[in-house]
Amino acid sequence: MPTTRDETSPAADTAARRQNNPGTRDSSLGSFFKPKTVAVIGASEKPGGVGRALFENLGTFRGALYPVNGQRDTIFGKKAYRNIASVPAHVDLAVIATPAGTVPGIIKECVAAGVKAAIVISAGFKEAGPDGIELEHQILEATKNTPLRVIGPNCLGVMGPHVNLNATFSKDMARTGNVAFLTQSGALGTAIIDWSLKEKVGFSAFVSIGSMLDIGWGDLIRYLGEDPQTHSIMIYMESVGDAPAFLAAVREVAPVKPIVVIKVGRTDAAAKAAASHTGALTGSDEVLDAAFKRAGVLRVQTIEEFFSMAKMLAKQPLPRGPRLSIVTNAGGPGVLATDMLVECGAQLAVLAPETITELNKVLPPHWSHSNPIDILGDADAPRYAAAVAVAAKDPGADGVLVILTPQAMTDPIATADLLRTYAHMEGKPLLTSWMGGTRAKTGRVILNEAGIPMFDYPDEAARAFANMWHYTESRLPRQVPEPGSEKPAPFVAEPDEARVTDLIAAVRRRKGTLLTEYESKQVLSLYGIPTVETRLATTVDDAIKAAESINFPVVLKLHSDTITHKTDVGGVKLNIRDASEVRAAWTAIEAAVKAKHGTGHFQGVTVQPMVMLKGSELILGSSLDPQFGPVLLFGAGGVLVEVFKDRALGLPPLDPYLARRLMEQTKIFKVLKGVRGRSSVDMAALDQILVRFSRLVAEQRWIKEIDINPLLASPERILALDARIVLHGPEVKAEDIPALAATL
Amino acid sequence: MPTTRDETSPAADTAARRQNNPGTRDSSLGSFFKPKTVAVIGASEKPGGVGRALFENLGTFRGALYPVNGQRDTIFGKKAYRNIASVPAHVDLAVIATPAGTVPGIIKECVAAGVKAAIVISAGFKEAGPDGIELEHQILEATKNTPLRVIGPNCLGVMGPHVNLNATFSKDMARTGNVAFLTQSGALGTAIIDWSLKEKVGFSAFVSIGSMLDIGWGDLIRYLGEDPQTHSIMIYMESVGDAPAFLAAVREVAPVKPIVVIKVGRTDAAAKAAASHTGALTGSDEVLDAAFKRAGVLRVQTIEEFFSMAKMLAKQPLPRGPRLSIVTNAGGPGVLATDMLVECGAQLAVLAPETITELNKVLPPHWSHSNPIDILGDADAPRYAAAVAVAAKDPGADGVLVILTPQAMTDPIATADLLRTYAHMEGKPLLTSWMGGTRAKTGRVILNEAGIPMFDYPDEAARAFANMWHYTESRLPRQVPEPGSEKPAPFVAEPDEARVTDLIAAVRRRKGTLLTEYESKQVLSLYGIPTVETRLATTVDDAIKAAESINFPVVLKLHSDTITHKTDVGGVKLNIRDASEVRAAWTAIEAAVKAKHGTGHFQGVTVQPMVMLKGSELILGSSLDPQFGPVLLFGAGGVLVEVFKDRALGLPPLDPYLARRLMEQTKIFKVLKGVRGRSSVDMAALDQILVRFSRLVAEQRWIKEIDINPLLASPERILALDARIVLHGPEVKAEDIPALAATL
Repeated sequence: MPTTRDETSPAADTAARRQNNPGTRDSSLGSFFKPKTVAVIGASEKPGGVGRALFENLGTFRGALYPVNGQRDTIFGKKAYRNIASVPAHVDLAVIATPAGTVPGIIKECVAAGVKAAIVISAGFKEAGPDGIELEHQILEATKNTPLRVIGPNCLGVMGPHVNLNATFSKDMARTGNVAFLTQSGALGTAIIDWSLKEKVGFSAFVSIGSMLDIGWGDLIRYLGEDPQTHSIMIYMESVGDAPAFLAAVREVAPVKPIVVIKVGRTDAAAKAAASHTGALTGSDEVLDAAFKRAGVLRVQTIEEFFSMAKMLAKQPLPRGPRLSIVTNAGGPGVLATDMLVECGAQLAVLAPETITELNKVLPPHWSHSNPIDILGDADAPRYAAAVAVAAKDPGADGVLVILTPQAMTDPIATADLLRTYAHMEGKPLLTSWMGGTRAKTGRVILNEAGIPMFDYPDEAARAFANMWHYTESRLPRQVPEPGSEKPAPFVAEPDEARVTDLIAAVRRRKGTLLTEYESKQVLSLYGIPTVETRLATTVDDAIKAAESINFPVVLKLHSDTITHKTDVGGVKLNIRDASEVRAAWTAIEAAVKAKHGTGHFQGVTVQPMVMLKGSELILGSSLDPQFGPVLLFGAGGVLVEVFKDRALGLPPLDPYLARRLMEQTKIFKVLKGVRGRSSVDMAALDQILVRFSRLVAEQRWIKEIDINPLLASPERILALDARIVLHGPEVKAEDIPALAATL
Repeated sequence: MPTTRDETSPAADTAARRQNNPGTRDSSLGSFFKPKTVAVIGASEKPGGVGRALFENLGTFRGALYPVNGQRDTIFGKKAYRNIASVPAHVDLAVIATPAGTVPGIIKECVAAGVKAAIVISAGFKEAGPDGIELEHQILEATKNTPLRVIGPNCLGVMGPHVNLNATFSKDMARTGNVAFLTQSGALGTAIIDWSLKEKVGFSAFVSIGSMLDIGWGDLIRYLGEDPQTHSIMIYMESVGDAPAFLAAVREVAPVKPIVVIKVGRTDAAAKAAASHTGALTGSDEVLDAAFKRAGVLRVQTIEEFFSMAKMLAKQPLPRGPRLSIVTNAGGPGVLATDMLVECGAQLAVLAPETITELNKVLPPHWSHSNPIDILGDADAPRYAAAVAVAAKDPGADGVLVILTPQAMTDPIATADLLRTYAHMEGKPLLTSWMGGTRAKTGRVILNEAGIPMFDYPDEAARAFANMWHYTESRLPRQVPEPGSEKPAPFVAEPDEARVTDLIAAVRRRKGTLLTEYESKQVLSLYGIPTVETRLATTVDDAIKAAESINFPVVLKLHSDTITHKTDVGGVKLNIRDASEVRAAWTAIEAAVKAKHGTGHFQGVTVQPMVMLKGSELILGSSLDPQFGPVLLFGAGGVLVEVFKDRALGLPPLDPYLARRLMEQTKIFKVLKGVRGRSSVDMAALDQILVRFSRLVAEQRWIKEIDINPLLASPERILALDARIVLHGPEVKAEDIPALAATL
């Protein structure tokens, strides 16, 4: 089996089903967030029970609310209904909190009643074992080809603050705001609501996504992308689920609304823990990272960073550039913030001469005269305000961070008060850090209320600014790499797919999955990737003829459709200078292979010119990820690939822009561009080779693994010196091969 | 000039002075922290003034307090004295807050009155320009060869909480505790005191170190190392000052008391900002990092980590190993903590079978059955307590983290209350994270009061545990690298220093600073570092003779005492197979050098065997850091050194243990130990080569730069193939060369 995808995986089912009725159902998600009528199925008066908490929390809902309970006539004095069919109005949203075993039946009733949205709070499904999986199947079966969409099961519920909808069993209702928050951990969701109340961060939507039986990340992102009340989307993710759906939605929404993800399970130990508690599949984190980059998601690593981004996005605009001005009453914290700022890839703004002149007018003579703008320990509130006013006006600054440390003359409250004027600057975020535990507290409250994000520490604030900038950066328009600076890319004709199909068929006929080096290079050639001239010789005389026609010195390599690691069996002879050496090499290779593997594995040799070019050895490869399908790898090649791990991953297909961005992530990229007096390789040609390679991988879905190692890149030429292609076995069906996750 | 040390630098003066009366003065530091009598010079009633704040803050001091003021008879009703001479008792500690210009005079009076400790709060010295530097000189002059030691100038002051001494102008007094806190930023100090009051962290000493005119890090660390009330030392550092004194003190104290440093100015931009506000020198941050590692300092990067360590060290023991157990009522936060734990180099504890059995007895059937121990969303306080009790007993756990998220059945207060029992477990730290903003608050207060560190986020807690473990790890006893697993190190005789001196003298005689490759290799040989056989030939016939005696193939390289980059001038010819090729190579090199540089630069060739061994190219080098003196560099060599930067820095001298630790920090280390079927190189021999090289660098202080690149390390042999040594110019005096910072 080429993939680890579980055939019983609901995600796979969902993806398959979505293909049956594509795009017809997304519009109904409005019923989750802006319903007019809500039924709570399993509403109860039982103290401490979820059914009671739900019913109580929905008490503030502005629309009509109907408790449904099989045994009771009233719930807290409100008429209760035996089932959804008996509810006297059309129900937009059903919230279900009954035992798992009853849920498939209730879902059928919802379908019958024309309900479009159901939230299944109940646990006891996939995560509980085979019986739970069976219940999930029944739910999917019941909703198939119906308009009913399901969030959950095993979740905390949904909040729509703008309509006062708290369809969760968490007591605290989120504030109204413009951040949509999606979480795969209900408990973390509760903690975040709690935190947001303190920090005055408001939400447009809150979704505890649960097991993603039906509705997954992609559905929600697409819906929220069109929701006018949502300005940004924050996601706590444990597994990506339906990867192509997620990527497609992000690709659509990220250019207009920031999407920030904290994805746990980066390490194997954590991934294992996550799998055990959600029953969810997890793929390689490195691949996920590449996918996030491709789609324009900003990934953060710690809860602190996640909260920082939530604060920033809720309250301030994205900066237009990387340059931050820092106003501080103490040098140390300014330096601390500078370290973090630079390490996170942003910069200190350089003060314009006029800014310095203006600051000279409002500050005492000993101020720092550069950024960080140290306005000195005795700074009072008006001095702070004056300095911020000047700093903010500088066209060379893309944001302002104000740091306050408690000193003798410091007035944290009055300073906070005066800063409120600068809470909303066009395209220039304002950040603050009022340091200290108790004395700065009131000042912090004032800033929070005024919509100015407050950070406990100045380095946190600097990181938040840098993260905001990275988001802006990821949305900058694509530039064709250095137009005109290089030779035009070589013309390559359309690949001859029929010949590739023939080659693969030939391998199948011999019941193999491994292409020989000769065949692999032919495939590359058909896709316009330059390979070193490689001639097949099945007799020693043919080999000599080939060598003479190529010109000495040459290389002889074992030709075999069973042995992949030619070097290990003595199957490679370099620097062969004449016919007698060809003969000797042939004999040596044949003898070595027969001794180690027996007759039949030696099927002749390939003859190749001995390439003497000085250049860099690269690796270009692809393998399959169970979630994201084919993944590309580019990096420094040769035998020490695994030691230095100078490589970057990307998703096919690539265009020249994406190819260049992929290469830029490696260290060897600098060498390719020319170091220590070496010339640059033809970068436009290399871009094209990556583009063609990615096309090969995207189109020839029977390829399980492919490597070009080394791809020799010299200023004179770029050449694949060796290649290896492995096909899926004949037992693998086309539909089992993970789909291509990205599109151009 | 080989160094950037400023001759007027007070640090240099201090270091010089300390050498004049070594070790005689440190004992007097007790007067700073435990004085019986304190005089405040510049005490005043002026509102908002530092002199008033100091006097008021010292009001709680348990000993005798004398205000000194040139103009007033009383300060707040207490008799004031005109000067220190008129104070009717012997003064232990003088706190000076008068204008900078008056300080040298006052210091003289202090010396005359036999005062042993003075804190100069006043600013307006080094940081204010040449006049300030002159004032600093006058102070140093006045205290020379006297028992008076000075903290400051330009600082916040000193607190000794155990004697209620607040000799600072910061209003809040630190709580009593066992952490000593030293800061180079007064403002940050105030913020930290403020924070510590909220977090219930207590201090044994608080020092705002100011400009370090006299007392520097080394003095304070050594004193606090012997102070029984201090259990750990936390440092906020902007510049290291007297580097050898700092390292020597740390080396002494770190094995018994943890020393944690946050050093700002990691990036160039921040270093520049720091330099402009403190006037302090800063060296390479990479070198500083190596020095911290060598001395056993734990360096943290963010204020949050710094505070986390302060909390942990103040409240909990160091863990004995890297294995953490996590008890949680929600999966997600447990996964989040696991990611950080593993990424920071610690591990999840593996639960013993008995632990699982015991947990089965106290937990509901669906608990996670592995670590993180997910005790499920409905966990009440007794379930938490029971799980923690079992987890803590497991001998495979070195610490326990308890995570609480606010869910329906959660009782943050009762749970905190029950955990107090486990606040002090022998050798097993307990950490907690009560998530959420407002609802968990009371629980947090209870835990803080009970001495159980509380973290806002579970990933922060995991990082704090990992940092604590790294501290333990740095103190584990040294192991000789893999005894018995390798061949014994080759015997090397003592270096013949006289011959090295002769070689250097020869270079001096020709008024050069560059050793030829031939000479450089001789120096290496004299220190027992194996070099490839290298023969000097000044005629073409000599070259042929040398080649025949060495055996073909050989390498010819330009011999010149003026040209360093031989390859760039066509001065290297490889793979020479016979006498005629020698002749051709000679002619070609001679012609190329004469064409590019003129006659005189060609002084013959060296003849060396063409080494065909397959192995790794390493680089071994050293250059001078202005603060730490010679610094060693080990890493992957060859032409791409600067691209891959696979290297580690260390301080000489090395022993085999330190040599191995240095190499382990690189990726190429894995290759040396053998990968992909390659054999290991002789690691013990390589250890020895590093040891000898470090000795060469430590002993031959006239070396300004030295590189062996490549040092070829193959399983068969280790050989220096090329070497380059540059000497200091004749204008550099021995005392200008930065001292060796480390000792073995």
